[in-house]
Amino acid sequence: MARIAVVAGDGIGPEVVAEARKVIDAVLPGVEATEYDLGAARYHRTGEVLPDSVLTELAGHDAILLGAVGDPTVPPGVLERGLLLKLRFSFDQYVNLRPSRLWPAVTSPLATVKPGEVDLVVVREGTEGLYAGAGGTLHRDTPAEVATEESLNTRHGVERVVRDAFARARRRERRKVTLVHKTNVLTHAGSLWARTFAAVAAEHPDVTTEYQHVDAAAMFLVTQPQRYDVVVTDNLFGDILTDIAAAVTGGIGLAASGSINPDGTYPSMFEPVHGSAPDIAGRGVADPVAAVLSGALLLDQLGHADAAARITAAVGAELASRTPGGAVRTAEVGDRIAAQVAA
Amino acid sequence: MARIAVVAGDGIGPEVVAEARKVIDAVLPGVEATEYDLGAARYHRTGEVLPDSVLTELAGHDAILLGAVGDPTVPPGVLERGLLLKLRFSFDQYVNLRPSRLWPAVTSPLATVKPGEVDLVVVREGTEGLYAGAGGTLHRDTPAEVATEESLNTRHGVERVVRDAFARARRRERRKVTLVHKTNVLTHAGSLWARTFAAVAAEHPDVTTEYQHVDAAAMFLVTQPQRYDVVVTDNLFGDILTDIAAAVTGGIGLAASGSINPDGTYPSMFEPVHGSAPDIAGRGVADPVAAVLSGALLLDQLGHADAAARITAAVGAELASRTPGGAVRTAEVGDRIAAQVAA
Ligand SMILES: CC(C)[C@H](C(=O)O)[C@@H](O)C(=O)O
Ligand SMILES: CC(C)[C@H](C(=O)O)[C@@H](O)C(=O)O
Repeated sequence: MARIAVVAGDGIGPEVVAEARKVIDAVLPGVEATEYDLGAARYHRTGEVLPDSVLTELAGHDAILLGAVGDPTVPPGVLERGLLLKLRFSFDQYVNLRPSRLWPAVTSPLATVKPGEVDLVVVREGTEGLYAGAGGTLHRDTPAEVATEESLNTRHGVERVVRDAFARARRRERRKVTLVHKTNVLTHAGSLWARTFAAVAAEHPDVTTEYQHVDAAAMFLVTQPQRYDVVVTDNLFGDILTDIAAAVTGGIGLAASGSINPDGTYPSMFEPVHGSAPDIAGRGVADPVAAVLSGALLLDQLGHADAAARITAAVGAELASRTPGGAVRTAEVGDRIAAQVAA
Repeated sequence: MARIAVVAGDGIGPEVVAEARKVIDAVLPGVEATEYDLGAARYHRTGEVLPDSVLTELAGHDAILLGAVGDPTVPPGVLERGLLLKLRFSFDQYVNLRPSRLWPAVTSPLATVKPGEVDLVVVREGTEGLYAGAGGTLHRDTPAEVATEESLNTRHGVERVVRDAFARARRRERRKVTLVHKTNVLTHAGSLWARTFAAVAAEHPDVTTEYQHVDAAAMFLVTQPQRYDVVVTDNLFGDILTDIAAAVTGGIGLAASGSINPDGTYPSMFEPVHGSAPDIAGRGVADPVAAVLSGALLLDQLGHADAAARITAAVGAELASRTPGGAVRTAEVGDRIAAQVAA
């Protein structure tokens, strides 16, 4: 049976992760979970972000379930670079998977988009680009200060994520992949992405392809999100586009994600797209749906496609049962979904 | 009287620029305009993108009105880097100004946003960041290929655009500036932006400030665009965010922009945010409103605030007179707006 590591984290992280675990236990009893205390609280207590020994222990698990880390008292970058990105990079989680669907029971903020119409997945590169951490500062705090950030892109890194996107498209009905980049300005990286995409596309004559600049894609996600099936893009563009996709499909309260190492050499990590939301933490009012759906992605990745599908169906029922604008009680949502998947 | 250079460009560029000029002539007779033939057509005919002699001539004008350049037959980057960005950088147009308002007569694609509610301006840095063109490729077309893009940010460049944003906020009712960056990942550039922003903010106690990560801002532009007044951000984030802002306020058909050199050392350039739209070119159906509004920004920059305000008012009347979903005739729109401003 699967052994997962759980990083509940800060703020609402522990609350929503508890519900995700409840649902996982209900749909697939016997998953072994070990908790790891990481995040802002530990950092404040001990100064530690991710000790090497913990990284090694995490590597021994089949997957990681993460709630949310961070809080406004930690300087920007400390937990992001030191924990989240450290895990994504150390575990070579090069596919950052972010599905967005407009659930039949959910109303989009977009007037013209009808429930059920949007069903896309963004395959965001997870180990390269501007997230590489290659940058520096000279003459800090003087008028001569210069700060750089470098986007690093390799054929190796681009090709493997583009291949993953095509493989996913083949398993979907519409079989369409949209490459998003900014080839007209970022000519070096853009050319690498475009040439690699074209080469992989040539091997997949059964998949429809298109290219869009990131600014156009940001716009079309608002005016015509229905047009997308699989979107493949770089690390930073993926970060931005997936938040737009989440916004038009009911908000990040429903958005799940997986940082996946498809080779299986390292554990993949699953987490809601939302943050730790310290403002509502501890009140039992956070929506655990994104965490529950992240649990479904986790089970799917571990080969339990049926269990994952049952969770997804139960979430659909849960959302359909809600009164628009009504309040959510975290534990009750988890109870209802758990009861449904167990039934 | 002002002397402007006109680069009508490709596709619908000449059509919409003709209407902008019609309106400028009507509101402020006597503006002298010289046409410059630049863009895809010239590139195909002569191989030239922007000869030095033309750059020098353009520098002698008070402002530049640009339609749209580009067409799918020109390789990506040639006209963008060689013409558009060459002008923005050569003429030190460090304020890329992009107002977005939801005109009273226009319906947002967002169900909850009511006409008139959104009125924001993005002050996008125009001469630095990932647009600097600092990047390269090694081992091209081999499995070992690596491609880089470098974001270059200086205190000089950041401070001047942040100051411009605060100055603009002071002239607006809400007096609020939102800094958008990604300080938790792009820690070097992010820190430079954040520190500079804080320093300038300290000099402006009458201006409210906030910070948002770019992914959050992309989301809030969809869920709550009403919350923004002035947004200041880097070159690439500004490119993406302004297309979202345009999308939620009725589309890029209405979005104007100015690439401004506030010092007045070089001419500023004004252009619709939309592209050359080759698919509808030559049919007289392109909406010239974005070009007309770019003309208003141009006149405003040249000190003709009254003329600019008259154009803006006339555009409001034009939009109010339209039947939703009705077709647009380019020349008729220009005629109506011109008649209105002359009245
Ligand atoms: C917290 C941050 C480092 C992270 C990212 O930028 O990837 C987050 O925004 C996300 O999308 O998972
Ligand atoms: C055409 C391109 C170079 C340009 C940009 O990225 O700045 C355009 O998208 C814009 O926003 O003006």
